[in-house]
Amino acid sequence: MISPLVVTTPGAGLFEITDQVAEVVRAAGDADGLCTLFVQHTSASLVIQENADPDVLVDLQAFFRRLVPEGDPLWTHVAEGPDDMPSHVRSALTQTSLSIPVAGGRLLLGRWQGIYLFEHRRRGSRRRVLAHVR
Amino acid sequence: MISPLVVTTPGAGLFEITDQVAEVVRAAGDADGLCTLFVQHTSASLVIQENADPDVLVDLQAFFRRLVPEGDPLWTHVAEGPDDMPSHVRSALTQTSLSIPVAGGRLLLGRWQGIYLFEHRRRGSRRRVLAHVR
Amino acid sequence: MISPLVVTTPGAGLFEITDQVAEVVRAAGDADGLCTLFVQHTSASLVIQENADPDVLVDLQAFFRRLVPEGDPLWTHVAEGPDDMPSHVRSALTQTSLSIPVAGGRLLLGRWQGIYLFEHRRRGSRRRVLAHVR
Repeated sequence: MISPLVVTTPGAGLFEITDQVAEVVRAAGDADGLCTLFVQHTSASLVIQENADPDVLVDLQAFFRRLVPEGDPLWTHVAEGPDDMPSHVRSALTQTSLSIPVAGGRLLLGRWQGIYLFEHRRRGSRRRVLAHVR
Repeated sequence: MISPLVVTTPGAGLFEITDQVAEVVRAAGDADGLCTLFVQHTSASLVIQENADPDVLVDLQAFFRRLVPEGDPLWTHVAEGPDDMPSHVRSALTQTSLSIPVAGGRLLLGRWQGIYLFEHRRRGSRRRVLAHVR
Repeated sequence: MISPLVVTTPGAGLFEITDQVAEVVRAAGDADGLCTLFVQHTSASLVIQENADPDVLVDLQAFFRRLVPEGDPLWTHVAEGPDDMPSHVRSALTQTSLSIPVAGGRLLLGRWQGIYLFEHRRRGSRRRVLAHVR
């Protein structure tokens, strides 16, 4: 079963989608299996990270901003704005797809794990994530 | 069903394999499901990126070359050539496996997404990618 | 079928788990399919790398230590120790989940590929990896 999730992001940052994914898994029923997420974009990505201390998300975003900066003379692809090429690289460094085992209609995440959409564009966007459960 | 794809690369760079993967998915039939790609190498990797402006690929490659340079005094593994250890690190920073949802015999890629084999060795090679569809 | 693997790490480093995963795949029987691994932590990750020359693993670890250093003034999340936030970032840069095709009860790894748990915490830990085979 493939379910499309829509995540509207107000700007760059990490946005937790664990509850949305859990709901899709619950609706898919009891079977043991796998939930695979796929983001249909190249300037937003997926990451599983700690959902306890929000500072982790702040630091994670700060790291990627510094590692892949806007305005780098390396970039030749600048027509779509100074934040576009960094967004592509930050996406390549994280995940386009992720798989999480499922049992009894529940995601088998570790105790401190949350699933995040990582929005890399400054202005945010309407992002589509496909969830395949089987 | 598992289908082996062979990609012969002329040198380092990003080589689009979307059409080859789409053909495997088409041949596998109509069922909704998932296509999982796996590259059987540790100095080439997989990435989904924008397939509209080729400058994105140029910049992506330039970024990884600078982030993980040849000749870095850090490298102790140099017996297989100056580009071998950087190739391993660049592979670790991108993907060995990728999953894409499938419906009606078609890959559910986003509008601007292409699937790329990222060859990290200077001389290129004959690369094997396994495509599992179910 | 989902099998939990436990990997007790003595400290930071790359620890090969190929044999443990191969055993789970063997036990699951002959069917062609896919083995998906999922690490239930955010300060340890998964990577497929060369298993021939151990220097590759040494260099890989050295690279991530330099790229994501302890004591970086960027980090605000320091309550869990100087190695905690770097561990999260190094995990985000590598993999939380990985899928490997399977045929006849065997992992279809390339000739030089090994599966590694990448422990990022200095003190090590007891890590759980879920293996889903179907």
